[in-house]
Amino acid sequence: MKHILLIGAGRSATTLIDYLLEQAERLDWFIRLGDRDETLAQEKIKGSSRATAFGMDVKNTEQLIIEIRQADVVISMLPAFMHLQVAELCVEYRKHLVTASYVSEDMKKLNEKAEQNGVLLLNEIGLDPGIDHMSAMKLIHHIKDEGHKIEAFESFTGGLLAPESEKGNPWKYKFTWNPRNVVLAGQGGSVKFLHNGRHKYIPPYRLFRRTEILDIEGFGKFEGYANRDSLSYINIYGLQGTPTVYRGTLRRVGFCRAWHIFVMLGATDDSYVMEDIKDMTYREFINSFLPYNPNDSVELKLMQYLHIDQDSDIMEKLRWSGIFSDKRIGLESATPAQILEKILMDKWKMDSDDRDMIAMLHKLIYFDGVSYRKILSHMVIEGKDSIHTGMAQTVGLPVGVATKLILEGVIREKGVQIPVKPEIYEPVLKELEHYGIQFIEQDEICEIEAERTI
Amino acid sequence: MKHILLIGAGRSATTLIDYLLEQAERLDWFIRLGDRDETLAQEKIKGSSRATAFGMDVKNTEQLIIEIRQADVVISMLPAFMHLQVAELCVEYRKHLVTASYVSEDMKKLNEKAEQNGVLLLNEIGLDPGIDHMSAMKLIHHIKDEGHKIEAFESFTGGLLAPESEKGNPWKYKFTWNPRNVVLAGQGGSVKFLHNGRHKYIPPYRLFRRTEILDIEGFGKFEGYANRDSLSYINIYGLQGTPTVYRGTLRRVGFCRAWHIFVMLGATDDSYVMEDIKDMTYREFINSFLPYNPNDSVELKLMQYLHIDQDSDIMEKLRWSGIFSDKRIGLESATPAQILEKILMDKWKMDSDDRDMIAMLHKLIYFDGVSYRKILSHMVIEGKDSIHTGMAQTVGLPVGVATKLILEGVIREKGVQIPVKPEIYEPVLKELEHYGIQFIEQDEICEIEAERTI
Repeated sequence: MKHILLIGAGRSATTLIDYLLEQAERLDWFIRLGDRDETLAQEKIKGSSRATAFGMDVKNTEQLIIEIRQADVVISMLPAFMHLQVAELCVEYRKHLVTASYVSEDMKKLNEKAEQNGVLLLNEIGLDPGIDHMSAMKLIHHIKDEGHKIEAFESFTGGLLAPESEKGNPWKYKFTWNPRNVVLAGQGGSVKFLHNGRHKYIPPYRLFRRTEILDIEGFGKFEGYANRDSLSYINIYGLQGTPTVYRGTLRRVGFCRAWHIFVMLGATDDSYVMEDIKDMTYREFINSFLPYNPNDSVELKLMQYLHIDQDSDIMEKLRWSGIFSDKRIGLESATPAQILEKILMDKWKMDSDDRDMIAMLHKLIYFDGVSYRKILSHMVIEGKDSIHTGMAQTVGLPVGVATKLILEGVIREKGVQIPVKPEIYEPVLKELEHYGIQFIEQDEICEIEAERTI
Repeated sequence: MKHILLIGAGRSATTLIDYLLEQAERLDWFIRLGDRDETLAQEKIKGSSRATAFGMDVKNTEQLIIEIRQADVVISMLPAFMHLQVAELCVEYRKHLVTASYVSEDMKKLNEKAEQNGVLLLNEIGLDPGIDHMSAMKLIHHIKDEGHKIEAFESFTGGLLAPESEKGNPWKYKFTWNPRNVVLAGQGGSVKFLHNGRHKYIPPYRLFRRTEILDIEGFGKFEGYANRDSLSYINIYGLQGTPTVYRGTLRRVGFCRAWHIFVMLGATDDSYVMEDIKDMTYREFINSFLPYNPNDSVELKLMQYLHIDQDSDIMEKLRWSGIFSDKRIGLESATPAQILEKILMDKWKMDSDDRDMIAMLHKLIYFDGVSYRKILSHMVIEGKDSIHTGMAQTVGLPVGVATKLILEGVIREKGVQIPVKPEIYEPVLKELEHYGIQFIEQDEICEIEAERTI
């Protein structure tokens, strides 16, 4: 019997736990599920004879050691910053570890010792990072193996709403995941990417005005805005010399133009606490960012200040979101970003009958020796319900499948890894197809043009 | 005979040195002028029998102690971060110190010991900070002494060009002072101020679109954009309860709209080093911030991207500045802000026959018991030539005058001070009038309106 220790029973672990319980019956596994909240962990295992739930405090090193020593493989679904201690103990007690989080600098440093001890620390094997790496590398390796040159690599992911949950919502968007991350998207430094051999830079406050329209067959049009970190993927994906490297986030068309208004106002700023917000209304919050005028309404001042037509889809989205209401914010002390999140929660909180949708799209251009060809490869996964969301499926299943493949000895890599090697991504992607996580690909001749004059 | 030690013989000290040499003859002073560059110091004292120039290294504590011990008063015209060591030694050896720099947190901590030792550390007595404090406090104290309530305090300062040097320059601007500070103006956090009792916030990337047009009699129209730190002046100036508190910077009308384009592009970003700039041209630099397009020109892409009319004054300014030229930048490694500074230097470097101009404007509204009244008080100082600039006069003369008044025992304050007390600003302002540094004031009935609806 194989023993799996799973730490963290939160939202993103739901589908993973179901998968593990199902496999446990078939493959003679036993699962120990630990969470700070023992009741939550208890609920999640649904009385399975193949699992035990228990309360755990990751700061309790003694308990952690006892649990890790009993396991054959450990899965950490903790917040990213809490993985390190688990990873160190896994290396020490020679247990493999699987996480869906980005590899931290500290995690990287464990590589040598993990290799020496024959331990695999497999990270970034969720959705994004995770499925994005695996599906992109499969395409990249395939083109390179054919001896062709990659001219452009673009990749987009979005956590969105299933089409029927979009209805009546002009943004066609709700907080399907961490609201704070959505509000702070694009804060920070300038965005950098490569476009046909030219380095391009977008300051954070122009990000939502530099979108690309993308079509996903059967799902209509989306828009993509740039992620901060495109250039780092040149090394991760082996794209040295590729003239276009761009990673972005998907939204429904029109989202970014309207979100840009919040950015322009300064309402997404998280760097200072606002004054006198005790009795502040939504409307007064917006007014804080507008020029003083004794007579005009907040709506008029906003339209004039940011050149918005009164009958535009932008104003429709802003009005629908409730930002002009006289409702009290009800926070004692908060940054603009925290207040905006609170206001948007009214309309963007997922209802119990809402379903989310994950969309991923890769766009690659390559030269086959005769002509330029474009590959479009997309995956769309709709949530089943408010528990088995698209996000929970696409994060949890790759983690579960990778764990299974490690236990079965199919994945034999050691050290700190992310799933960019065929030895890892091939068996994982293949197994994910059984769960409907698959990419639909088209490959056609295209034209590309160099920037002749500037 | 009184001995003055002046440390720093740079650009801002020119008028100060001339003032001190002139007073030295009359008042039996002797000046020791130390600078890292002994030749420069030697030139500045023009062979006066009342002064000695010498090379000095402020890191040489021994030399610094010898010099300070010989002096009756010390003036530091060093960069602000270098004052602290001088100040500590002044406190220890019981010598008064005068600087034109902002009081640092570390400087503040010397207050108690300075008071105990009977030493005055007088800071912020240049132009801005300096003349702004003194002239504003004179108005504020006057209104309060009359028993009236201040409804609004606004204050603007600008380092500009004398009208005849503006000719043929559509920006009506050149780098009259530190170019780097001009390029980085408005970088950083959100701007905060009070307008008729309401806290208002402007994110840095909207700063140059929130200007106020101001008229200075005899000099025409200017525009003011907000400084970052208005709220801190509530305590410094005793403006608790004043509904409007705003400090800003003056430019000629139209400057900010055009500068806003550089901000929107991301060309003022100083947070990252650009890639591959070795052979980059001005034009390619601008293109780095524009969407990729194989056929359109940089000019067209810029106009389309930022909605600029081709026949607008903005395009005239941008074209004139040379940003579309094929000239090589010629830097090995630089941030966007450093490159922009280099490019603008071509046109914005002061020619030998250019003269600068300092403008300061205070706008106060108060209620005299019957009606609201508005005071407009302005000072304009033109540079005499490229050496005796408006900046050198308005920074150097208050420092010199304060030094004289300390030596004469007119200023008797002790501890860490800035010139916001009548005991300091009254005699200094009075003496500055002899040098043409004076304010012209008008006081008239006005109306104010509260923001009724929002």
